[in-house]
Amino acid sequence: MKNINIGLLGCGTVGTGVARMLLNGGDLIKSRVGATLTLKRVADIDTTKDRGVRFDPDVLIEDAWAVVNDPGIDIVVEMIGGDTIAKALILSAIENGKQIVTANKALLASQGNAIFRAAGEKGVDLAFEASVGGCMPIIKTIRESLVGNRIQAMIGILNGTCNYILSKITDDGSPFASTLAEAQAKGYAEANPALDVEGRDTAHKIAILSALAYGMEINLTDVYTEGISHITPMDIEFAGQFGYRIKLLAISKFKGQTVEARVHPTMIPFDNMLSNVNGTLNAITISADAVEDILLSGRGAGMLPTASAVVGDLVDISRNLLSGTAGRVPLLSFQMDAIRKIPVMPISEIVTHYYLRFSALDRPGVLSTISGILGSCGISIKTAYQKGRKINGSVPLVMLTHAAKEAAVTKALNEIASLDVVSAKPVLIRIEDQNNED
Amino acid sequence: MKNINIGLLGCGTVGTGVARMLLNGGDLIKSRVGATLTLKRVADIDTTKDRGVRFDPDVLIEDAWAVVNDPGIDIVVEMIGGDTIAKALILSAIENGKQIVTANKALLASQGNAIFRAAGEKGVDLAFEASVGGCMPIIKTIRESLVGNRIQAMIGILNGTCNYILSKITDDGSPFASTLAEAQAKGYAEANPALDVEGRDTAHKIAILSALAYGMEINLTDVYTEGISHITPMDIEFAGQFGYRIKLLAISKFKGQTVEARVHPTMIPFDNMLSNVNGTLNAITISADAVEDILLSGRGAGMLPTASAVVGDLVDISRNLLSGTAGRVPLLSFQMDAIRKIPVMPISEIVTHYYLRFSALDRPGVLSTISGILGSCGISIKTAYQKGRKINGSVPLVMLTHAAKEAAVTKALNEIASLDVVSAKPVLIRIEDQNNED
Repeated sequence: MKNINIGLLGCGTVGTGVARMLLNGGDLIKSRVGATLTLKRVADIDTTKDRGVRFDPDVLIEDAWAVVNDPGIDIVVEMIGGDTIAKALILSAIENGKQIVTANKALLASQGNAIFRAAGEKGVDLAFEASVGGCMPIIKTIRESLVGNRIQAMIGILNGTCNYILSKITDDGSPFASTLAEAQAKGYAEANPALDVEGRDTAHKIAILSALAYGMEINLTDVYTEGISHITPMDIEFAGQFGYRIKLLAISKFKGQTVEARVHPTMIPFDNMLSNVNGTLNAITISADAVEDILLSGRGAGMLPTASAVVGDLVDISRNLLSGTAGRVPLLSFQMDAIRKIPVMPISEIVTHYYLRFSALDRPGVLSTISGILGSCGISIKTAYQKGRKINGSVPLVMLTHAAKEAAVTKALNEIASLDVVSAKPVLIRIEDQNNED
Repeated sequence: MKNINIGLLGCGTVGTGVARMLLNGGDLIKSRVGATLTLKRVADIDTTKDRGVRFDPDVLIEDAWAVVNDPGIDIVVEMIGGDTIAKALILSAIENGKQIVTANKALLASQGNAIFRAAGEKGVDLAFEASVGGCMPIIKTIRESLVGNRIQAMIGILNGTCNYILSKITDDGSPFASTLAEAQAKGYAEANPALDVEGRDTAHKIAILSALAYGMEINLTDVYTEGISHITPMDIEFAGQFGYRIKLLAISKFKGQTVEARVHPTMIPFDNMLSNVNGTLNAITISADAVEDILLSGRGAGMLPTASAVVGDLVDISRNLLSGTAGRVPLLSFQMDAIRKIPVMPISEIVTHYYLRFSALDRPGVLSTISGILGSCGISIKTAYQKGRKINGSVPLVMLTHAAKEAAVTKALNEIASLDVVSAKPVLIRIEDQNNED
């Protein structure tokens, strides 16, 4: 029986899941791969913690470099996270000719171009299915299943923490702050939730997927990123009255010479399947010329769902090693020489529909003033709705627009915000509605 | 630039789609694979029809055997369908050492064990993603992404014709016969719709998936198969009142020493994502020990969606040829020597929830008689509902049961059907409700 030796760097939650799947699922993997996958070394700064996994003596060590430099290790699994030591270890492992598996979206999104180039030049595989969407096979689907398709758009719910919080606010009507605290208590949000709730984790993921889908260099810097902390139960309630749900979406669209790549809370209609993806679930719709739309959904985080994706990658690479091949599938989906720089469109240039909410004094002429400013900026109003109930002396005035350019909307909102009759910063939530393309 | 030569057998709808994708998408495929995929020969009995595709001279020929026996062809794509000539051609192509791609679920479900054995012995790849779920990457997901998982269950909508018809009856309340006729007029149902509406096409697909998921030999014969022609608007309406939708489901569950594999109309609750998969869409939920549930959805039929899956297979195999490897992924997901015969449970042995509708004369004592018979067979009633409106002198009496064994339900229904006060054959529709496990 052939054998592949694996070295695991970092044994936190997901690393422990990987170890557990390899140690407990050995027979299953053998029956599928026709070889054993041996967890030869696990490096973690804490070698004493009880992880509920029984390692053989000498497997668990402190020194990650000893794993990377061990000539007996075939595949290095990087589960440390972050973009400092993890990067150095990965680059060193590549240099040593090891195959790599990682779930490190922050690192790949910010420094992936250099890392993938190093792997490509060395001729080693670098697999990263677990970096986006946990167990949903989104990267394999793009790189392998949709290989004959021109991908036109991807719209996804890619952060379980945000989806949990927004689902809870929708169900319970409680405000963001207390819902976040509850999510933290339940372990669905980190002690420092910024990476998730500010949308940056989602931005990392859509930057990676956009590169894979369109054959472009990874570009995280230009992904517009807006989080969910300003979403109120009131806006969720209004959304529902218009037939919409609010989700933190990653939106990526191929526009020929440019790409839209943006992350922000978005209203989507009830009949969009993504609107029913609740709690910590992730999901993504991919639109492409041959398949039309396909949707994948699954747990985007958690010990075993994420570990499942890592084990899938380990088996993929093991199969390559057993066949004596590497680079069978190009790392970023396209041949290195076909990858271009495609600019990401500034958010000011996008054209979409908008939900706008103003806190306006309940005086004659206010509606006319606000709608006049919108009109003078070329923004056409589809629906206007004024709710009678006063909040701090103001009434909410809600408008849905026809398709408009963001730059025009920003200009109008700045002007409206400076009016005496407007008592708070106007609220803007973008709408993604496939039923409403005008 | 390396080159792979492809021979296509059968140029009907999907075959034409494959030809179109290869001819029009050549640059895209090249940029991903780093090689050209050349459509060297296309065999079809009709070489004169205008398919909207321009073939080079000598590409389109009548004789499929000339393709199979052409030493210059690397991969044979079988798009003829059926289980006579297609089987002979595939076996001959295998014998000639060619790699195979097919979408022929009828053939694989009924004679796949022999065909896969032949391919395995010859050491050629046989890919069949397009045989189940069109462009949804369900086979790749099972064979590659979930490779570290023990798959526990699969529940799918795998036939677009049936899903279209049931969705239409649900929306419009029109009966089966006229809805079928409308589907035929729109091209969503075949002139001879039996294979689809009797559930057999779905049975083919779940027989294939069950083999892949559990490491068992393909067993079509024992898949319980019931179609949708007896589903009435009335039952769909009652289902809605209980919070259910009716879908033709393929249900497959691993039970350790045995497997459930069955196809029948099924009530599922509104909060099951499958209940929102409407029209010609397909979808499947896979439950497994590490990932919990994942869902895939997409077009299960149609020229380009199905062709997309075929092209994905062609690229997979081309990558194997370019790497000088075959059999990289075992054909049926498990190593040949790990595949067992696992019996499929007879439908009489399954335990599930039931919706029962009786046409009962509106007389005192009828409810008590019927519920008495159910009780004496050990079937516990969860809800009983008698609708006032008379139909042909009878009133519909609807009952939902707690979990019961099908054999007991059959026995009770036979007894009830023979009562004088019951005027029509009782209606039985199984319920799959994850919220209701008692």
